[in-house]
Amino acid sequence: MARFDLVVKGGAVATATDTFRADIGVKDGRIAALADNLEDAAEVVDASGRLVLPGGIDSHCHMDQPPGLDGARNADDFLSATQSAVTGGTTTVIPFAQQLRGQSLRAAVEDYHRKAEGKPVIDYAFHLIVTDPTPSVLGQELPALIGDGYTSFKLYMTYDSLKVNDRQILDILALARREGAMTMIHAENTDCIEWLTEKLELAGRVQPRYHATSRPNVVEREATHRAISLAELLDTPILLVHVSAKEAIEQIHWAQGRGLKIYGETCPQYLFLSEEDMGGFDDDDWHGARCMCSPPPRDKANQEFVWRGLEQGIFSVLSSDHSPFTLNKQGKFAQGPKPPFSKIGNGVPGIATRLPLLFSEGVQTGRLSLQQFVALTATNHAKLYGLHPKKGTIAIGADADLAIWDKDREVTITWKMLNDRTGYTPYEGRRVKGWPVEVFSRGERVMREGEVTAKPGRGQFMRCALPETAVPRGRPVVDPALFA
Amino acid sequence: MARFDLVVKGGAVATATDTFRADIGVKDGRIAALADNLEDAAEVVDASGRLVLPGGIDSHCHMDQPPGLDGARNADDFLSATQSAVTGGTTTVIPFAQQLRGQSLRAAVEDYHRKAEGKPVIDYAFHLIVTDPTPSVLGQELPALIGDGYTSFKLYMTYDSLKVNDRQILDILALARREGAMTMIHAENTDCIEWLTEKLELAGRVQPRYHATSRPNVVEREATHRAISLAELLDTPILLVHVSAKEAIEQIHWAQGRGLKIYGETCPQYLFLSEEDMGGFDDDDWHGARCMCSPPPRDKANQEFVWRGLEQGIFSVLSSDHSPFTLNKQGKFAQGPKPPFSKIGNGVPGIATRLPLLFSEGVQTGRLSLQQFVALTATNHAKLYGLHPKKGTIAIGADADLAIWDKDREVTITWKMLNDRTGYTPYEGRRVKGWPVEVFSRGERVMREGEVTAKPGRGQFMRCALPETAVPRGRPVVDPALFA
Amino acid sequence: MARFDLVVKGGAVATATDTFRADIGVKDGRIAALADNLEDAAEVVDASGRLVLPGGIDSHCHMDQPPGLDGARNADDFLSATQSAVTGGTTTVIPFAQQLRGQSLRAAVEDYHRKAEGKPVIDYAFHLIVTDPTPSVLGQELPALIGDGYTSFKLYMTYDSLKVNDRQILDILALARREGAMTMIHAENTDCIEWLTEKLELAGRVQPRYHATSRPNVVEREATHRAISLAELLDTPILLVHVSAKEAIEQIHWAQGRGLKIYGETCPQYLFLSEEDMGGFDDDDWHGARCMCSPPPRDKANQEFVWRGLEQGIFSVLSSDHSPFTLNKQGKFAQGPKPPFSKIGNGVPGIATRLPLLFSEGVQTGRLSLQQFVALTATNHAKLYGLHPKKGTIAIGADADLAIWDKDREVTITWKMLNDRTGYTPYEGRRVKGWPVEVFSRGERVMREGEVTAKPGRGQFMRCALPETAVPRGRPVVDPALFA
Amino acid sequence: MARFDLVVKGGAVATATDTFRADIGVKDGRIAALADNLEDAAEVVDASGRLVLPGGIDSHCHMDQPPGLDGARNADDFLSATQSAVTGGTTTVIPFAQQLRGQSLRAAVEDYHRKAEGKPVIDYAFHLIVTDPTPSVLGQELPALIGDGYTSFKLYMTYDSLKVNDRQILDILALARREGAMTMIHAENTDCIEWLTEKLELAGRVQPRYHATSRPNVVEREATHRAISLAELLDTPILLVHVSAKEAIEQIHWAQGRGLKIYGETCPQYLFLSEEDMGGFDDDDWHGARCMCSPPPRDKANQEFVWRGLEQGIFSVLSSDHSPFTLNKQGKFAQGPKPPFSKIGNGVPGIATRLPLLFSEGVQTGRLSLQQFVALTATNHAKLYGLHPKKGTIAIGADADLAIWDKDREVTITWKMLNDRTGYTPYEGRRVKGWPVEVFSRGERVMREGEVTAKPGRGQFMRCALPETAVPRGRPVVDPALFA
Repeated sequence: MARFDLVVKGGAVATATDTFRADIGVKDGRIAALADNLEDAAEVVDASGRLVLPGGIDSHCHMDQPPGLDGARNADDFLSATQSAVTGGTTTVIPFAQQLRGQSLRAAVEDYHRKAEGKPVIDYAFHLIVTDPTPSVLGQELPALIGDGYTSFKLYMTYDSLKVNDRQILDILALARREGAMTMIHAENTDCIEWLTEKLELAGRVQPRYHATSRPNVVEREATHRAISLAELLDTPILLVHVSAKEAIEQIHWAQGRGLKIYGETCPQYLFLSEEDMGGFDDDDWHGARCMCSPPPRDKANQEFVWRGLEQGIFSVLSSDHSPFTLNKQGKFAQGPKPPFSKIGNGVPGIATRLPLLFSEGVQTGRLSLQQFVALTATNHAKLYGLHPKKGTIAIGADADLAIWDKDREVTITWKMLNDRTGYTPYEGRRVKGWPVEVFSRGERVMREGEVTAKPGRGQFMRCALPETAVPRGRPVVDPALFA
Repeated sequence: MARFDLVVKGGAVATATDTFRADIGVKDGRIAALADNLEDAAEVVDASGRLVLPGGIDSHCHMDQPPGLDGARNADDFLSATQSAVTGGTTTVIPFAQQLRGQSLRAAVEDYHRKAEGKPVIDYAFHLIVTDPTPSVLGQELPALIGDGYTSFKLYMTYDSLKVNDRQILDILALARREGAMTMIHAENTDCIEWLTEKLELAGRVQPRYHATSRPNVVEREATHRAISLAELLDTPILLVHVSAKEAIEQIHWAQGRGLKIYGETCPQYLFLSEEDMGGFDDDDWHGARCMCSPPPRDKANQEFVWRGLEQGIFSVLSSDHSPFTLNKQGKFAQGPKPPFSKIGNGVPGIATRLPLLFSEGVQTGRLSLQQFVALTATNHAKLYGLHPKKGTIAIGADADLAIWDKDREVTITWKMLNDRTGYTPYEGRRVKGWPVEVFSRGERVMREGEVTAKPGRGQFMRCALPETAVPRGRPVVDPALFA
Repeated sequence: MARFDLVVKGGAVATATDTFRADIGVKDGRIAALADNLEDAAEVVDASGRLVLPGGIDSHCHMDQPPGLDGARNADDFLSATQSAVTGGTTTVIPFAQQLRGQSLRAAVEDYHRKAEGKPVIDYAFHLIVTDPTPSVLGQELPALIGDGYTSFKLYMTYDSLKVNDRQILDILALARREGAMTMIHAENTDCIEWLTEKLELAGRVQPRYHATSRPNVVEREATHRAISLAELLDTPILLVHVSAKEAIEQIHWAQGRGLKIYGETCPQYLFLSEEDMGGFDDDDWHGARCMCSPPPRDKANQEFVWRGLEQGIFSVLSSDHSPFTLNKQGKFAQGPKPPFSKIGNGVPGIATRLPLLFSEGVQTGRLSLQQFVALTATNHAKLYGLHPKKGTIAIGADADLAIWDKDREVTITWKMLNDRTGYTPYEGRRVKGWPVEVFSRGERVMREGEVTAKPGRGQFMRCALPETAVPRGRPVVDPALFA
Repeated sequence: MARFDLVVKGGAVATATDTFRADIGVKDGRIAALADNLEDAAEVVDASGRLVLPGGIDSHCHMDQPPGLDGARNADDFLSATQSAVTGGTTTVIPFAQQLRGQSLRAAVEDYHRKAEGKPVIDYAFHLIVTDPTPSVLGQELPALIGDGYTSFKLYMTYDSLKVNDRQILDILALARREGAMTMIHAENTDCIEWLTEKLELAGRVQPRYHATSRPNVVEREATHRAISLAELLDTPILLVHVSAKEAIEQIHWAQGRGLKIYGETCPQYLFLSEEDMGGFDDDDWHGARCMCSPPPRDKANQEFVWRGLEQGIFSVLSSDHSPFTLNKQGKFAQGPKPPFSKIGNGVPGIATRLPLLFSEGVQTGRLSLQQFVALTATNHAKLYGLHPKKGTIAIGADADLAIWDKDREVTITWKMLNDRTGYTPYEGRRVKGWPVEVFSRGERVMREGEVTAKPGRGQFMRCALPETAVPRGRPVVDPALFA
């Protein structure tokens, strides 16, 4: 019997710390050896002249979630979403199991396991979305689910059907602190958004572009400051998801300077799109709906500050926030052909394009080192959510989730190559340099030259450990004995 | 007939800009002349060797308001409160007309006019407290009341029976902007306070000192940031009342640096008291209840930052937030002798001591100029609330509200001299230097050497003009046409 | 004999605190009475429908100073400069007595008194410019001169012939603290400027526009931070003069928030001019030389931040920094017709236009209140430099320095009306609303409808008192006993 | 012949990204394999139950440098310093080659190579100290030396014999930018220090404790801001060395938030010592001289902010700033037994204690992850100075510089165990948990259980590459063509 099931030979292997030339020996799906020269393998893949990176982890992506008030249905299920993911070099996803109000959280989790059944082509875990923190959710379900490997949850400060109030956030943060879980927060001030939306609709300003008007920077900044304050009060680490506005980034940087464990995530749409992509104010064709998401892309000048946040480590992760809606009545336009912006399916796809976009504009331009790229797209995700060291790195014992990149390949992005079901990409026609050409998951080839070769359902569910990043600082404002 | 009804001779007259030696000629209650030498007066008061200041304006003081959930009843009505005010050199008060939920705002106003009837010894206006901004309140009552001279209103972000939510705040700010009124905001995060209070009570930590624990700095900071953000969104000036914590002061300073019209008020309790005055953690005598108020006095180091806010103009006004409760079952202890802190009447008296305390520790020490003192205690109040130039200054045409101070008089404060009905003062035994010895309201002597000489009910109700300070900057985040 | 020498009747009298309708009675050059109605005057001036303001004080203006290395000679002496000043509503100037290196400071002062002899049409004091703080200057001359009424001095952190180094600044600040004098600082990093200038000249980038390139924002910010640090170390109040860059304003605001006594001054050129006024990069006509000054006007976006600094009280004063050079070989072009920017006379005129520009764009637009205007242009100057209450206000006992403004008069600025000798104004053709129509100095009419009526030499030299603004906070970093 | 020269078996191998259980195979001094299980080795070292870390890199340590004005001579030469280094788990040092004024830089370098000859027991590189940037230094020597592998240099903003002025700093930064080298800056305002020192000495305040008084926080903050400004002007990355004061840390954090490439270093003395360790103000025994260094240890509250800087990544590296002086006339007291502080040898030893102190108080307490520890003590040093990937990590191809740590070993630090020649340690008697028990350099055992087993002179000089960290951002304030 061969010593290794697979050897990836001769590539430039990159981790969040190093790039080195090595052969990678895989046995039983794990990385068993890294060495100058490995032989005796059942299969050898030649990676010379190529980069070998840890497969990407997308820790913020939506698939097969129920329609919101806008009626828009996710275009992607666990099959197409994960097929698209591997197409772009991602080998792990952490989508959401969303509690419906009134629903048991455990039931929600079981529901999503059913949705996933037989579908994912890569490994996956779940974040919980807690929308109804009843005493039984807080007292029994959440602690038990954390014990079962659901160690992160997302809270919404906005959206009628999802939002929790400050008091509920405190309850959940206290629990997260006690149990060692990680809390993700969507920070926008819901009252401001509702108020502005109502005024805009009264004034007939309903085109997609007004979506941005309804959620100005200050609305994100306020909620970010509030989330930081609640976390500071209880000395509980949090992650602010899909941060977009300069002013919100400044709040995070300020909090970090004060020593708080406040983490930040941003997304490609805040680096590559701007409010202008949501159309003009007089636009009659609702074309910009395709680029609508929340928070909205900001003005072009704002992009520079998002880049800066990545460069300087203010952000720990770049995720896609993949929210795929078709441009028809199944998706964005469930309410009709030209609904007011608040009735348009809200979100952009991006699970496949995340890595190539960042690589091309970040690494190739010198803004980010290759190590920062690996950290932002893979390693830090694994650490934030308790999947490290199994995922997110290339090290002895880690899963052999590997993406072989041709860093010189120039590609013009077009939706057809992305293997999702959204029907469009906001990045259509954009030219990038650098592309993943072959991808392995636990040592098994799952993508090659744009073709997904993995069998549906081969992806495994993973129980997440308690993340080290979720450990409190131990310098709380109030005595934690009060809520122990 | 004499040319002047009264001449105050030979004093050092101070305004917010100047100190100059002059005689003041009063005719028909107004200042008719300022000159080197005035004669031909019905009465001449010798002020030589004395300071002649504009009578103080206390724009934050409670009198004859209904008990809150703690059942505590204001010790002072419009008579005793204004008697105490003049005792300490104050000649104008702006108490509150508080709407009860479900009550018409107009009815509330009428109610307070009835309470005041026949009582005040000095002139007064009303702020409205809006607790229930129904469509009719927003659509009819408030605009009409503003037109009738009630041009400022206070909003609470906390207290169950008083609080308004962010959306209601936006509605009211939009109206304030449209009408040109001034909005005062009590900024503390109510969810945090409730949550902490519940935890503290569960843990049996119920002594008055835990009142401070239940409202830590971050809770004030958060709400301050939020109030600033809502004001910024709509480009509406606001005043943050009774600001206490360094961190909240920093938010205000930050907002001012960004060019926003954010005003701040602080109170003597944040300069002269600290959390230690609320007793120890093991205290069994509930003695510290006498110093309980919200926000709570902070640690001693914090006092320096409050002083700094006064020195640097971050604060525009110093008010008393006079909230007089006796130390018995009519007042602080309506719920019994040793109730948990959340059931203790919340507030401290201070309408008489405000000016002498600031004069002694501010002006005499050189921290504040006499001009800053006048501005902080009188002039800026009048400007913020549309009473200038009738009140708050010494100028031709202004009401002859004058306080003659002996700046060298040393006084040991004791409750008995304060002419209020609270039964105690938090400053008992404190020695100050500088004291008002004679006070005139519209040229009529109302206090002399501690004795109130004014007839109950002589004080007149004043309709406030739209304050210049409430004019928007004209650089809003969102198009004001949306809410015009 | 008439009771008053002059009565100004019926105007709207404004101070830094109030605006009120009053007659002003003047006796022996002083304001002797303010009253509803004054009669019995030798002369009555009708000011009805007009504003009556304290005459402006220009505390930063150059006249009859020696040429610098560029050879440019001030176009204005003490006669023409003060004639131009009154034309624009200014009644007091504080020019500089500049020490030459190697020169005794006392000799410098005497020199400037000689220059002034028989010339000024309005009252004046002197700031000292200390360029050579020898032991005798520090030990004898400066203390003696302070005692003689020269209570403020200016230090340059740049310009070869003027600059002092950090150590010299410390020596002077220590002395200022000890004696109670006020220190003004020109804050730009001289090494950066020299280095950049050399590089620009080597590259042939020598047009006036490159003057701005040679002094970027960061250069002003750095020196501002350094000056603040030195002042903080010794707990000595300072005034940063002619502040231009947003980044420098932020430093001052930051220092003020930390409780430091750091004052700021700005000038019209930073509100109304921008770097584009210094011409284009390819400009061959050197036309932009007329708008060259240091620090340079910044980009247009920066103007907003300077306005904000005025609105928010970050700046205490607006001065002209009048530095008049003709556009010929006597002035800007002493080195020839198209010299490199570093050889062009550096400075802009503005002693007449200062008040009308600020009034029109500040007060008329609502950005500034009339009270802020008075404070920024008159009162605060007097307070900063020990001339208050004699100058800078309208109060009993103050000098009757009064400017009667027609606030509705629309004027197109043209050099010919300004009564200076510069030959041009940077504001040629600009239209303003509001103009001083009649001006009195110590009760004597000195200007009427653009015509200067004052006799040369009537202006009196004033000894300045120790300014209250120069008093230390008393919270030094190092024990002041060390340098007492 | 065995496949590996050495296999380190069964340890928990840690990098700046991962910890994983693996065997390490070493061949020809390099890491040739990492694998679950390696055999066939000439020598096998059992590391089971132990941590295997990259050997530490100390990028700020002084050895065999000439006495300064205080006459103090380094106690350690290249032998004893490196022996002490390996004792504490460090396998690479980057000491300084210091130019004397007037000396050729090349000559200085050769001088230090001579000093090193036959001595170092571990590999080393040199930073240059540039004290005299003559045209030939800037034009020829420095570029040539950079090409030869001396790619970093240190500048002093203080010390008479070392300091360079702002203009010289600009010259050197411009060169660094052009060539791609890294500039280290000692940031303290020299004028302030000299001025204060002179005042203190005049006042007879000369004990070691006054050393801190002579260099207060603001002095470090000012120079830090200035260094940042100069770097920003030219868009050149810099590293601020041995940062101590909260206020300086805030400047760095502020600069990083603005997107600048400003790196920071701190040292154990700012985490573990405070100004009190320099003795009392009345101390007659000069005992505190042993803890004197510059910048001085600050007050105890400041330590928290230094920790925070490490936790939050504001600092990239922790170095020792090992400056060994004996406590006698060869060292600290070259000027006599009780000289004024300015004449005492300035510096503390710490090359051996650096890692154990940080491990014990940082990693064991949970403040830092093991990955942060590795990054701060090894990996980031290598990256900052062009030694990565040869040094600072455990990866295929890297030098086999390995430290085996017993993380549970409790040790009481005493000077005798440190193998240096200083005669004392500031940390005498301090108890730590975690200690390096065996150390390898290029696969060769150099230390075992406190005994240095390496042969003098076995250490190799390394030419440094141009560091990736020194690449400009490409967004300069001024056109880099000016100084290309």
